[in-house]
Amino acid sequence: MTNPVQDQVRVGVFGGSGYIGAELLRYLCSHPGATISWVTAHSRVGQEIAEVLPNLKGAIPGSFVSQAEGEERIGEVDVAFTALPHNESQNLLPKLAEANPEVRLVDMAGDFRTNDPAGYEKYYGCEHTASDWLPRFVYGFTEFQREKIRAARLVANPGCFATGMLLALAPLAAAGRLQGNVCLLGLTGSSGSGNKPRQTTHHPERFSNVRSYKPLGHQHLLEVESFLGSIDGPEFSLQFVPQSGPFVRGIFTTVFTPGVSAAELAEIYAGSYGEEGLVEVIEGSPDLRWVQGSARSWVGVGGEGGNGVVFTVIDNLGKGAASQGIQNMNLMCGLEETEGLRMAGGFV
Amino acid sequence: MTNPVQDQVRVGVFGGSGYIGAELLRYLCSHPGATISWVTAHSRVGQEIAEVLPNLKGAIPGSFVSQAEGEERIGEVDVAFTALPHNESQNLLPKLAEANPEVRLVDMAGDFRTNDPAGYEKYYGCEHTASDWLPRFVYGFTEFQREKIRAARLVANPGCFATGMLLALAPLAAAGRLQGNVCLLGLTGSSGSGNKPRQTTHHPERFSNVRSYKPLGHQHLLEVESFLGSIDGPEFSLQFVPQSGPFVRGIFTTVFTPGVSAAELAEIYAGSYGEEGLVEVIEGSPDLRWVQGSARSWVGVGGEGGNGVVFTVIDNLGKGAASQGIQNMNLMCGLEETEGLRMAGGFV
Amino acid sequence: MTNPVQDQVRVGVFGGSGYIGAELLRYLCSHPGATISWVTAHSRVGQEIAEVLPNLKGAIPGSFVSQAEGEERIGEVDVAFTALPHNESQNLLPKLAEANPEVRLVDMAGDFRTNDPAGYEKYYGCEHTASDWLPRFVYGFTEFQREKIRAARLVANPGCFATGMLLALAPLAAAGRLQGNVCLLGLTGSSGSGNKPRQTTHHPERFSNVRSYKPLGHQHLLEVESFLGSIDGPEFSLQFVPQSGPFVRGIFTTVFTPGVSAAELAEIYAGSYGEEGLVEVIEGSPDLRWVQGSARSWVGVGGEGGNGVVFTVIDNLGKGAASQGIQNMNLMCGLEETEGLRMAGGFV
Amino acid sequence: MTNPVQDQVRVGVFGGSGYIGAELLRYLCSHPGATISWVTAHSRVGQEIAEVLPNLKGAIPGSFVSQAEGEERIGEVDVAFTALPHNESQNLLPKLAEANPEVRLVDMAGDFRTNDPAGYEKYYGCEHTASDWLPRFVYGFTEFQREKIRAARLVANPGCFATGMLLALAPLAAAGRLQGNVCLLGLTGSSGSGNKPRQTTHHPERFSNVRSYKPLGHQHLLEVESFLGSIDGPEFSLQFVPQSGPFVRGIFTTVFTPGVSAAELAEIYAGSYGEEGLVEVIEGSPDLRWVQGSARSWVGVGGEGGNGVVFTVIDNLGKGAASQGIQNMNLMCGLEETEGLRMAGGFV
Repeated sequence: MTNPVQDQVRVGVFGGSGYIGAELLRYLCSHPGATISWVTAHSRVGQEIAEVLPNLKGAIPGSFVSQAEGEERIGEVDVAFTALPHNESQNLLPKLAEANPEVRLVDMAGDFRTNDPAGYEKYYGCEHTASDWLPRFVYGFTEFQREKIRAARLVANPGCFATGMLLALAPLAAAGRLQGNVCLLGLTGSSGSGNKPRQTTHHPERFSNVRSYKPLGHQHLLEVESFLGSIDGPEFSLQFVPQSGPFVRGIFTTVFTPGVSAAELAEIYAGSYGEEGLVEVIEGSPDLRWVQGSARSWVGVGGEGGNGVVFTVIDNLGKGAASQGIQNMNLMCGLEETEGLRMAGGFV
Repeated sequence: MTNPVQDQVRVGVFGGSGYIGAELLRYLCSHPGATISWVTAHSRVGQEIAEVLPNLKGAIPGSFVSQAEGEERIGEVDVAFTALPHNESQNLLPKLAEANPEVRLVDMAGDFRTNDPAGYEKYYGCEHTASDWLPRFVYGFTEFQREKIRAARLVANPGCFATGMLLALAPLAAAGRLQGNVCLLGLTGSSGSGNKPRQTTHHPERFSNVRSYKPLGHQHLLEVESFLGSIDGPEFSLQFVPQSGPFVRGIFTTVFTPGVSAAELAEIYAGSYGEEGLVEVIEGSPDLRWVQGSARSWVGVGGEGGNGVVFTVIDNLGKGAASQGIQNMNLMCGLEETEGLRMAGGFV
Repeated sequence: MTNPVQDQVRVGVFGGSGYIGAELLRYLCSHPGATISWVTAHSRVGQEIAEVLPNLKGAIPGSFVSQAEGEERIGEVDVAFTALPHNESQNLLPKLAEANPEVRLVDMAGDFRTNDPAGYEKYYGCEHTASDWLPRFVYGFTEFQREKIRAARLVANPGCFATGMLLALAPLAAAGRLQGNVCLLGLTGSSGSGNKPRQTTHHPERFSNVRSYKPLGHQHLLEVESFLGSIDGPEFSLQFVPQSGPFVRGIFTTVFTPGVSAAELAEIYAGSYGEEGLVEVIEGSPDLRWVQGSARSWVGVGGEGGNGVVFTVIDNLGKGAASQGIQNMNLMCGLEETEGLRMAGGFV
Repeated sequence: MTNPVQDQVRVGVFGGSGYIGAELLRYLCSHPGATISWVTAHSRVGQEIAEVLPNLKGAIPGSFVSQAEGEERIGEVDVAFTALPHNESQNLLPKLAEANPEVRLVDMAGDFRTNDPAGYEKYYGCEHTASDWLPRFVYGFTEFQREKIRAARLVANPGCFATGMLLALAPLAAAGRLQGNVCLLGLTGSSGSGNKPRQTTHHPERFSNVRSYKPLGHQHLLEVESFLGSIDGPEFSLQFVPQSGPFVRGIFTTVFTPGVSAAELAEIYAGSYGEEGLVEVIEGSPDLRWVQGSARSWVGVGGEGGNGVVFTVIDNLGKGAASQGIQNMNLMCGLEETEGLRMAGGFV
């Protein structure tokens, strides 16, 4: 990356007042190789960032700017994150890429994660109006796309459920052990629904509740099936059930692997993640709280006899969004991949 | 049942200070056809019941008595519940049945739920010393065992996870639609671990945590497989993963049924539960909170194309323990099955 | 009360789909002396009640009707509860009272709780347009207004914070021990904010949060000061701080009584509540969970040397709203005061 | 501080597996000017630190050593933290100080916080056996003791409730505005009880509970009264009520100041904290979640007319323990006071 004047990566963030944007800012604030240039926020223009996000008090100066200002100042930054609602990204990203051919763009939305506009329309409920841009994006599932991401200018950051699934599924697929009906379940915290109050995230109704939604039909299946389809192997069909739990951060994913023993699973994941800086493998179940507030993921394996189960835990705002975005930024900008991502969450 | 002197069923409870015992007392307190005669509690002998269980203040008089006193006074009651730790029941129940041949006994522990002492030893970690009594017990999964329970003097009340599973699995088995690897997951609240503090139920470590345990090896598989084995049909293998969630009451069970569509599932469960007083069937996912504090269960169905998913929600202390016990008591004593069980939990 | 045709009190509920309305229905469902005639719900007209409130499945038949229909059918009922937003009540109640001079009305809103229209305007932010009706209402703080309520046709049910405060303050005032600056704090659950999602009840932002609001300026001060003003005694000034905690049900109120010892407090409250059916007094702190889902309240006393502290716990939807409303209904209709209110909440 | 060989402060931690010890390690892990030399843990000797504290995986190498080994290796470190149970510190600290006259010691327990052995015995229930050491310790309430701490070799870190109180009270005392009966309340999360399971932190019984304990008699009154006693001003009497809430981290403290208006409070706190790096002042109530996982504190002010209220929020494991300890270490070692403490917690 050409960055002659200064040794800090200059970063812009579109959509900095949402939960994903806020978490990007949290990581960027203490990132030793990055400097925040500007942050947009639809409804907060002119307000101090730290007034809207008091957790960042003392850590970040300045005020939110308008999206228009972000677009104008795209030339000032080396990297921009777009943390906007689905469907808004497809309008904005091409404009940004054309306005600044040098800028690296990391899109946090679902718009550019596959090369399948029909699938997008089916799952996201609206037409894809920038489908010619789809092939230019690299899918940012870091651990399996490292070289492509290093060379990329446009990255589509994976969805949160997708990341939880792929951490388990990609090694299985690469080992040729993904086949038939693959049953899996992801239990997510309420922050995955974003910062806009809704009935399903109304505290009295979520406090001690569990429910499922979109069984077998969640939109992240699109990107997961697309990514796994690029790996040779037997036929398989994902049976994915997303669920909502009474906590804020994290996704606990469970994958059933009848016919693949715990011992074989342990070997597969040790092979995939043994050298990884931000993924740990253990026998038995990880605890979801180990990753809350952190960029780290855990994969656990268990089972009886010849049948196995895989567990993954991620922070949906971390590896499921912001910290994976920073991993990708680091790679795209020639920084150490885990730079700014090594701080630990609390034990409790 | 011969009950000539009075028209109230006289009830004794062994183990009334544990969570299941406390919930039995809560239901019995307001049961119009039952009167509590005595309640034992290991470490609380002589203490007022309502001092130990302040939620029952004003609802229950008297003090806990010793287990020895309960045994001596077994002749005073028409029904006794035993809510004791596993392995204690097998010593006590035969003694009680012999001391009062007229008494109805409902055991809440795992000791008499199958006719398989070897399985008991494998899953519960100790020898079964009353295995000749096993065939005398009826498995108390009420909705599918009604006639046997009515005629029974000895009932083994199902386990909490087992109940959550069977509500989904029994109708499938009866329809001949349970086959191959059946993947299912049960997410439980912390009250399932009982009232003794442990690290996994220590508030700071459970508050926003999710974890799994005993994947594919939970002891309730023993009774579920045993009960389903009594229904003719294809071969199947249960792949059950129990999980712990950050809430107190309830179990949310998810069963994957690839090859059985949502429409077929709807038909199967409407057939099984359409006339039931305490089981509801809906399209889509139920909310766990709908059953907290209540005797009622919900079964939800969903899916895409030819593949389905079944959800069940129960209160682990209700249908998963105490309220199912009361259902069984009602049947054994010739009362209306839902007597004392119709009060509703809160909307929030 | 003239009720010749049937011995059941016939009840109508305005606003049955809100949290207070839903809790009224929950109590009424299992009330042996009451029958629900109709229930209105602004935005749910025509929907089955048990579809909107699944916790009531099997317990309540029928569908919500429009407010207009409720008004038309006011002649069919012996009692009507109005669980509507503040300011709507002042329009509706006079109309109802005039349409059916025999009906008993219990208003759950803040409109008729004092005889101070100026105070209403100050605290509730809008003019009182039915101020001539104010003197006709009895303030429904049951334990201290029993005889007036028995004779009343119009009752203004106390606010939730007000009830938590008054349980502690009224006996102090009656004992002449309320004087000077009286510091007190009420910590409430999220159900107190109602069923409409807001930022302060958005699960990710409420899950582990505590905050205060309207310090020293909460609107329930109006009714508390008004009621206490009717008791002779020294001058005092209430310094009340309301707070929001990360739970759903209940209010924990703390009152500082420097100069009044724990022993004296114990005596005062034993005198006030010793014979009460739904209020308990203990030494030390009560647990909030003892009252969740229940009609019962606890008062605890503690302190060091000559200085004391009083704690009260109520369920904000129970004694703080619906169950106090039913207490009042029972008195107004000549029923046993605790009828329908004796069922216990869970130990956990 | 003489530290000629290396520019990193070498740190030892006694009691690294408890919650306070774990939080010290979390801050030390990413502290740019500190290196962890060894960490003791009573019952975990020989186990990998990151196995016991999985949140620190990848962030901290090595295993726990025995306390004996820590004592032997006291000469290897520039600073040692003692995060041991109360009463153990009084035995250990003098030994350490004598074994290495150069070492800086920060004690996290209650043993050396005042110069009042009789008070210690009264509040902590056991004799003080090292009372001659009491005057050698500096009370580590950083913002008000900065110069003394810089010069100190022995620091007694304040208690969690004490810190929450003093952030509000010390400026009031310094302004001569603390007088008469001062009513205040602190609501704490469950992590304040430590990592050993107890009934009051058993998840089913804490999940949605609030209760008070030791009203007007909490042991932190000892150090608060002692510290405030060193500031000239009118007589006052603290009426402090500690409470337990259903969350893990943080203390929300409320102080009533009748006669001191919100405007005057704002002025007082702006004067005290306007230049502080880790304390913020706002009008109105802060949110507890703003400080969870962070070293930062907020003070909020509100009120009506001439009467005021002060709110403080701290993370009990942060400013209430570990991060204040690091602040003190930084001062004692000549580092920037906020070094290693500037990372932000999450917005949710």
